Amino acid sequence: MLRGPITLTTDFGTSDHFVGTMKGVILGISPRARFVDITHEIAPQDVNEAAFVIAQAWRYFPKGSIHVVVVDPGVGSARRPILCEAEGQFFIAPDNGVLSMIFDSCRPKVRVLSNEKLFLKKVSKTFHGRDVFAPAAAHLSKGLAPAKFGKLIQDFSRNFLSKPARLSRHDWSGVVLKTDRFGNLITNFHIDEFPELRERSLELRAGLERITRLAGTFAETALGELFAIVGSSGYVEVVVNQGSAAKRLGVGTGSPVELEIFYDS
Amino acid sequence: MLRGPITLTTDFGTSDHFVGTMKGVILGISPRARFVDITHEIAPQDVNEAAFVIAQAWRYFPKGSIHVVVVDPGVGSARRPILCEAEGQFFIAPDNGVLSMIFDSCRPKVRVLSNEKLFLKKVSKTFHGRDVFAPAAAHLSKGLAPAKFGKLIQDFSRNFLSKPARLSRHDWSGVVLKTDRFGNLITNFHIDEFPELRERSLELRAGLERITRLAGTFAETALGELFAIVGSSGYVEVVVNQGSAAKRLGVGTGSPVELEIFYDS
Amino acid sequence: MLRGPITLTTDFGTSDHFVGTMKGVILGISPRARFVDITHEIAPQDVNEAAFVIAQAWRYFPKGSIHVVVVDPGVGSARRPILCEAEGQFFIAPDNGVLSMIFDSCRPKVRVLSNEKLFLKKVSKTFHGRDVFAPAAAHLSKGLAPAKFGKLIQDFSRNFLSKPARLSRHDWSGVVLKTDRFGNLITNFHIDEFPELRERSLELRAGLERITRLAGTFAETALGELFAIVGSSGYVEVVVNQGSAAKRLGVGTGSPVELEIFYDS
Repeated sequence: MLRGPITLTTDFGTSDHFVGTMKGVILGISPRARFVDITHEIAPQDVNEAAFVIAQAWRYFPKGSIHVVVVDPGVGSARRPILCEAEGQFFIAPDNGVLSMIFDSCRPKVRVLSNEKLFLKKVSKTFHGRDVFAPAAAHLSKGLAPAKFGKLIQDFSRNFLSKPARLSRHDWSGVVLKTDRFGNLITNFHIDEFPELRERSLELRAGLERITRLAGTFAETALGELFAIVGSSGYVEVVVNQGSAAKRLGVGTGSPVELEIFYDS
Repeated sequence: MLRGPITLTTDFGTSDHFVGTMKGVILGISPRARFVDITHEIAPQDVNEAAFVIAQAWRYFPKGSIHVVVVDPGVGSARRPILCEAEGQFFIAPDNGVLSMIFDSCRPKVRVLSNEKLFLKKVSKTFHGRDVFAPAAAHLSKGLAPAKFGKLIQDFSRNFLSKPARLSRHDWSGVVLKTDRFGNLITNFHIDEFPELRERSLELRAGLERITRLAGTFAETALGELFAIVGSSGYVEVVVNQGSAAKRLGVGTGSPVELEIFYDS
Repeated sequence: MLRGPITLTTDFGTSDHFVGTMKGVILGISPRARFVDITHEIAPQDVNEAAFVIAQAWRYFPKGSIHVVVVDPGVGSARRPILCEAEGQFFIAPDNGVLSMIFDSCRPKVRVLSNEKLFLKKVSKTFHGRDVFAPAAAHLSKGLAPAKFGKLIQDFSRNFLSKPARLSRHDWSGVVLKTDRFGNLITNFHIDEFPELRERSLELRAGLERITRLAGTFAETALGELFAIVGSSGYVEVVVNQGSAAKRLGVGTGSPVELEIFYDS
């Protein structure tokens, strides 16, 4: 039984041999495995950015998909590798919170990856992507049962803070989850949690700017206009029509964003 | 019946989840689909650059290939998505001229993609790559007949100006179609349209430089020499031996290039 | 018979159509061929960097894999294309030394690629990746015997100097083979050739810094600490904990590194 595609999300970049080598290891064990690269451009060791990216992508994949996420500042230390099952899909990652947004949105079954027979024979101290995560994904793709990898655990890491904090009745403190390729600033205000944004006036404060327009489409705004829009993931994004909001505001991933909602206006 | 590979040409970059998510959508509908990334590094919203890139690549693909081109400044507006058949291959793109160079070189059959049953159930206003183009490509890859997607149209967009303009008997005004990775400047002077360049003297003017040598190979030029050469696509390129013509001349994609041919010298 | 995956290592970057076009050519000849991109970000025409990268990756691939390496400053000149067999895997590359590190580590059988029936009909002077190397790889992937490609040769190029030079009894002169994505400096001192580094004191000199610590793991060092470590390929690397050694030292690929070993301390 061949399971679904193996996706890869890492901070390895694409200028070294790292990603290709991981795929070589996988094909040596599971010759018919198929790959989808989500991204290898996560900022080095930025667990939060990787947590956001994989959380946006996984629901669009079919059941049986195996998502390998290797952003791993603790490589070589005692942090555990884990295998997570959620809604018929699989996740293989270090236990450092990088799967937090997935844990938040469904009931996961998490196991420690402790069966060393499923790793490469010689495990280096610096490249567990090749020596631990890739071979585990390969064995899983061939249909091996999750229980063969290790025991269920409950004390896995959930340290990613993705939710806005309430400052006062109408004020919320949020953050830029990610700056995308176009310079759009993706905030952690999700339309499902703030449905009133569709009807009320609002003010978003980021950098030195105050944004009061929540547009329905890019097409209804002017060239160069700064505004907010509900992005394709459901998060409110601060954007510039055919420009970069990140450059205009001088802010980026991790920057604070405040939201005020005017109920009585 | 599984059709040929699905190629992807976008301005999405590779640092976000966008491309991976499109592939997830496709694999959910057409599990055995196979991908070739042409590039995701088209300059944001640069329809002309994308038109050039896909025009260079497609003829090298086998019949049945499906080329998805998503550079889409009008996303969310009334611009139509289209499906084009040409010489046994398929193209899926917004109707914004991005397929112009293909329309110029063969007789295409173009349909509007109007069958919403072939899109994702919920279509966002900002990410038609995921919600419209990817699922359409997936259904097409499984062998669905083009007629199921929508009706033939004639009024599709052909706004890409790729041809040099004649200034006087021996003078032509052209443009840099693309600056490649090596800094080579690919002009829109094609050797098939200017075969006399092989025999006559010429002067190419770009930036502040005048180039009079059309070399046969890199190997016959000196290290650091600036010259012209007929590139692998048949276009005249301005290049520097082991250097960057773009840096030397301070010009790039979209810059003007003038050509003078000396017939009486 | 379908052979293993085709890997690609080039200096083509990913912003042009070059890599996609090569894959189109391959799929036209060998429709079920599968690809793994090692990297396309080799510095333009840097044969040494490509030699290092493919040497790190290939041993992790299964038998039957076909490694295509196109870093080719001599394209269009008389340099030969070659096909190499080594330990059940295959390599296709220009004969410019880019396979030197593979030749050093095993007994290769090297053939000149002289059978022009296996190239595209029209071979350009600038893009042998598309016209020569891609079609050859495609035919090989379909099971064609290596002897069909051309005759065995002995005078292939081995010009890559990857070994440290001895300066005096305890002093060695080495070089940075590659700067990786994280700014780690990979030297050409391999732990298998310098096993005494595990037990003796050492001093590595690079830029204006002197490094005396060879750590076992990143986790045992302090944030921002500069130290040496045996990397995942077995080479000694100069690194900074959660930082870039390349930036700290102001050195990069090709920079000299000196090693002194203290036997009598």
